[in-house]
Amino acid sequence: MPRMAQQTASAPTPVHTGTTISEEVRRVHEGGKLTVAATTELRDHHDLALVYTPGVAEVSAAIHEQPTLARSLTIKRNSVAVVSDGSAVLGLGDIGPEAAMPVMEGKALLLKQLADVDGYPICLDARDPDRIVDIVSAIAPGFGGINLEDISAPRCFEIEGKLRRRLQIPVFHDDQHGTAIVALAALRNATRLVGKDVGPELRVVVQGIGAAGIAVSELLLAAGVSDLVGVDRHGIVTPRRATARDPIFRRLGKRSNPRELTGPVDRALEGADVFIGVSAGDTITAEHLELMGRDAIVFAMANPVPEVDPAIARRYAAVVATGRSDHPNQINNVLCFPGLFRGLLDAGATRVSIAMKLAAADAIAALIDDDERSSERIVPSPFDDRVVPAVAAAVAEVAHRQGAVAT
Amino acid sequence: MPRMAQQTASAPTPVHTGTTISEEVRRVHEGGKLTVAATTELRDHHDLALVYTPGVAEVSAAIHEQPTLARSLTIKRNSVAVVSDGSAVLGLGDIGPEAAMPVMEGKALLLKQLADVDGYPICLDARDPDRIVDIVSAIAPGFGGINLEDISAPRCFEIEGKLRRRLQIPVFHDDQHGTAIVALAALRNATRLVGKDVGPELRVVVQGIGAAGIAVSELLLAAGVSDLVGVDRHGIVTPRRATARDPIFRRLGKRSNPRELTGPVDRALEGADVFIGVSAGDTITAEHLELMGRDAIVFAMANPVPEVDPAIARRYAAVVATGRSDHPNQINNVLCFPGLFRGLLDAGATRVSIAMKLAAADAIAALIDDDERSSERIVPSPFDDRVVPAVAAAVAEVAHRQGAVAT
Repeated sequence: MPRMAQQTASAPTPVHTGTTISEEVRRVHEGGKLTVAATTELRDHHDLALVYTPGVAEVSAAIHEQPTLARSLTIKRNSVAVVSDGSAVLGLGDIGPEAAMPVMEGKALLLKQLADVDGYPICLDARDPDRIVDIVSAIAPGFGGINLEDISAPRCFEIEGKLRRRLQIPVFHDDQHGTAIVALAALRNATRLVGKDVGPELRVVVQGIGAAGIAVSELLLAAGVSDLVGVDRHGIVTPRRATARDPIFRRLGKRSNPRELTGPVDRALEGADVFIGVSAGDTITAEHLELMGRDAIVFAMANPVPEVDPAIARRYAAVVATGRSDHPNQINNVLCFPGLFRGLLDAGATRVSIAMKLAAADAIAALIDDDERSSERIVPSPFDDRVVPAVAAAVAEVAHRQGAVAT
Repeated sequence: MPRMAQQTASAPTPVHTGTTISEEVRRVHEGGKLTVAATTELRDHHDLALVYTPGVAEVSAAIHEQPTLARSLTIKRNSVAVVSDGSAVLGLGDIGPEAAMPVMEGKALLLKQLADVDGYPICLDARDPDRIVDIVSAIAPGFGGINLEDISAPRCFEIEGKLRRRLQIPVFHDDQHGTAIVALAALRNATRLVGKDVGPELRVVVQGIGAAGIAVSELLLAAGVSDLVGVDRHGIVTPRRATARDPIFRRLGKRSNPRELTGPVDRALEGADVFIGVSAGDTITAEHLELMGRDAIVFAMANPVPEVDPAIARRYAAVVATGRSDHPNQINNVLCFPGLFRGLLDAGATRVSIAMKLAAADAIAALIDDDERSSERIVPSPFDDRVVPAVAAAVAEVAHRQGAVAT
């Protein structure tokens, strides 16, 4: 989920006192939301001899000889580690690994119920990026994929990058790429509605240059956008400003802002076609929106408080989307990650590529037919049961085409 | 399971070529033996808002304020990591983490089906003991217990010892302590049969001073045995010999062998009441057994080939047990670990103590009534459904009595 994307690791942790849990929420969380189940029955000594010694030794010896058999004869085939260090959990900030567990269990529950992927939460009592890379690399043999979650920026970039280089299974930081994929899917349909195109003509402003903002920007650039202007709380991102920051920020500084704008967000919004907010909320006013071009598109994705009240935004923009379920056009990662991991596991993928992300976005967008597309319907519902198979098929197809599959 | 206990980390890995998997074994292993299941249904946006955002934030915030809530509101309550580095898997040796997966899945399956414990296999691509300690410590927040498995000696002693000191959840190396607990349970009933006692009068020989042998020896010493003689492939363990070895071996050297015997196993067996083999198999002959005292007890636990053919042993001993399911009196860890973890989790235990191990052994032994006890019946069947509740209750009772529970 997008969240205070402008926060960095040094942002203070909000203090919560006297939190109460509503009865309905407590009921579904009591004892945890997951359980491990056996796929084969154990009734007698004969069964025991099959699933455990001596039978299991045949399977272990065979995998030792031919390691790829682990993908058919163990749970690796269908298992994804949902990994967090609890450093940037929802809007709650740095609450630690135990407190992150309910969120990771929720993620695993969605993977299971929507895509029959066996996600397992791994919450780490660790903070140093290299230590996290070392730990996740060490536990990787039993998993077919790694979903990183709720790890603060800029640490998340370093951790994901190093893991991607080190492991032969897909590593996907959902807060970055899940958000980016669903935003691109929504943007495809929003631009179609107003007769524009996700391409070099489109003027895009991205506010909030954290995990989600960087990933959204990079995926839009990969999709053909070239006039993209990043804005953080200090104003427009320029190559000069970017020099002082981490490598990821510098890379964005170099690749964005071709008209070399400087100054506050107002300057970026003048004549812009698209505003995408993945920042702290409540930063944009009616006056800001008035600066935008004709048939503006506004994605105010900050949670729980969007960058601008959607009711106000609708007065100035042709299409409005948020991250909230109580407004139309919810840009929600759950549209992507279950189908994405289903496709990666089905293909036996060894990595996630940009082409796979673009394909996933197009698959989501394509589920909205021309005749049903409207300013209140640019993305399907997460409960539309066509979503997971469409995304999975698109991702698996690219994995095979790119040869990014285990042999 | 006991295995080549005399092997150390430097022992060569057996080479397997052309392993075939029988059709029946392959069928139960296809796709792995475990799956993750949700404990709550996800049907619509309302359910999504409960199990994921925004509802889950209430639970995470509450755990952040009061960390002990993780034991009731997350899967930590009932979850055990089944951790191996694949360095000493069954009798197969050092076959690596992927090849260890089927065994760890089998272990998790037994935990689930016999004791409703959610075990999850974590197979580590790591060998350095300190690195393994670091990794397991980091993943601990989501688990209520750690079951170490199939880690070679002497590394297993260091790893378990450091984890026990570092973590506030129970850490249990089953190859050591599971074997020791079931052996003690069997010895209680075997000695009762022949009118002897597990105490200072009993002369015990333990052959094989690896993970299982050390743990069996230490638990028997804790149970009141004092005349215990350890034997490895170089002969009787003496304080002088022990000095050269690792600290665990040294400790045994000091605490055992009160008559200061030296030489080969023959010297240890003269007049011995009990022989316990947890070594490489096929090391003991009829001539060796003739040296033992009246009403001898022989536990030949090496797998798959016992130290001595049970048919031969029965000619010389009053009670014979093995690690095999095709002979009476199978000394099998599965009699212990499911109930032990059930009890530890039920109590919210913070550690495993010697008193808990002694209580678990006594609980297993007590399931054989005086009138059913015989030379062919000194332990219950793993499928006796009284085993898990009896062991769990005994362990939980001691945990509460010792105050070794989370508050």
